[in-house]
Amino acid sequence: MARPTIEFWYEFASSYSYLSVMRIEPLAEQAGVEIAWRPFLLGPVFLALGWNDSPFNIYPPKGRYMWRDLARLCDKYGLPLRTPSRFPRNGLLAARVAQIGVEAGWVPEFSRAVMRANFAEDREISEPAVIGEILAAMGLPADELLAAAGSEDNKLALRRQTERAAELGLFGAPSFRVGDELFWGNDRLEDALDGAVRHAPVGSEAEDA
Amino acid sequence: MARPTIEFWYEFASSYSYLSVMRIEPLAEQAGVEIAWRPFLLGPVFLALGWNDSPFNIYPPKGRYMWRDLARLCDKYGLPLRTPSRFPRNGLLAARVAQIGVEAGWVPEFSRAVMRANFAEDREISEPAVIGEILAAMGLPADELLAAAGSEDNKLALRRQTERAAELGLFGAPSFRVGDELFWGNDRLEDALDGAVRHAPVGSEAEDA
Repeated sequence: MARPTIEFWYEFASSYSYLSVMRIEPLAEQAGVEIAWRPFLLGPVFLALGWNDSPFNIYPPKGRYMWRDLARLCDKYGLPLRTPSRFPRNGLLAARVAQIGVEAGWVPEFSRAVMRANFAEDREISEPAVIGEILAAMGLPADELLAAAGSEDNKLALRRQTERAAELGLFGAPSFRVGDELFWGNDRLEDALDGAVRHAPVGSEAEDA
Repeated sequence: MARPTIEFWYEFASSYSYLSVMRIEPLAEQAGVEIAWRPFLLGPVFLALGWNDSPFNIYPPKGRYMWRDLARLCDKYGLPLRTPSRFPRNGLLAARVAQIGVEAGWVPEFSRAVMRANFAEDREISEPAVIGEILAAMGLPADELLAAAGSEDNKLALRRQTERAAELGLFGAPSFRVGDELFWGNDRLEDALDGAVRHAPVGSEAEDA
């Protein structure tokens, strides 16, 4: 009875991840595809490629284009956008909290709220107060979760997830994995879902990775 | 009576330009949009960004992904693909010849034939013999055109076109321009055509750039 599954790798600092975090749930539901949420950190992945900052900052023409492209896509998808006054923001704390939410089941709502804070409300998502407020608004025990997010076990789990991203050949976010197939970028979300449906596993091998 | 126009900036060495060169004519015709063909060279544009090779070679995970993505997209579009044994090939000669074809009106057919040679037949498009054969198969005077391609005027025209690409903020290929709006990548071809239709110029200002 295994449903087709898509691994969704995203980073809270990433502008194109914002689009996919906001879009993925209804599209996956419509396609009958299960989402495995995989928050991770782009920083170490970029460092391995020789970038100590977002390529959108390192290469100004790419950066200028990205913001214009993002604005057009937000228009197209009906998503709000207020260009962050700081980019990229540090997504470490949000990713650690999200890691807990994957197990607990509230990661989709939490991820959307963090993305809205970063890209629609220009709020500093690296601040515990901002993340705490988001958790509280969801009716969750904010202080307890912020403490759990900083536990050694949870920090290690996120570090392992980020290492896994590099092992899988990821070099940007959002990325999607279906079986062994990698899809990069919000533009490939629909293709990745199609791939998940067409190559639906007989057993549960799509979950193995 | 000015029709909406799209500027189509492409490079013969570029894998994603292959897709757009093969796809653009029927899509533009269906949308009622005129195509301004703008062959140019990515090399100088990349050099200005600090890359002395294709980023797909400089960053191996990006390169591995690109070839897989290209194969999937060729499947989707029904285009043939034989991964070139050399990448990127030098597109200088083809671009110089294409420059002549823009004026003469045969640039679409010529561009498709060169792209097929590079990405479906694994032929060395930097060789005059290969380009000459393509021209001859189109019923054109190959020797005469190869000589004209190497004239100082024509070399200068391509150099200026490539400088113009950088001035316009282009950083990759294919790119599309509609009025002052830049769209990057084969993934944006449809959006760019939509943009051309929605913002159809009253006069001919879309042609000014």
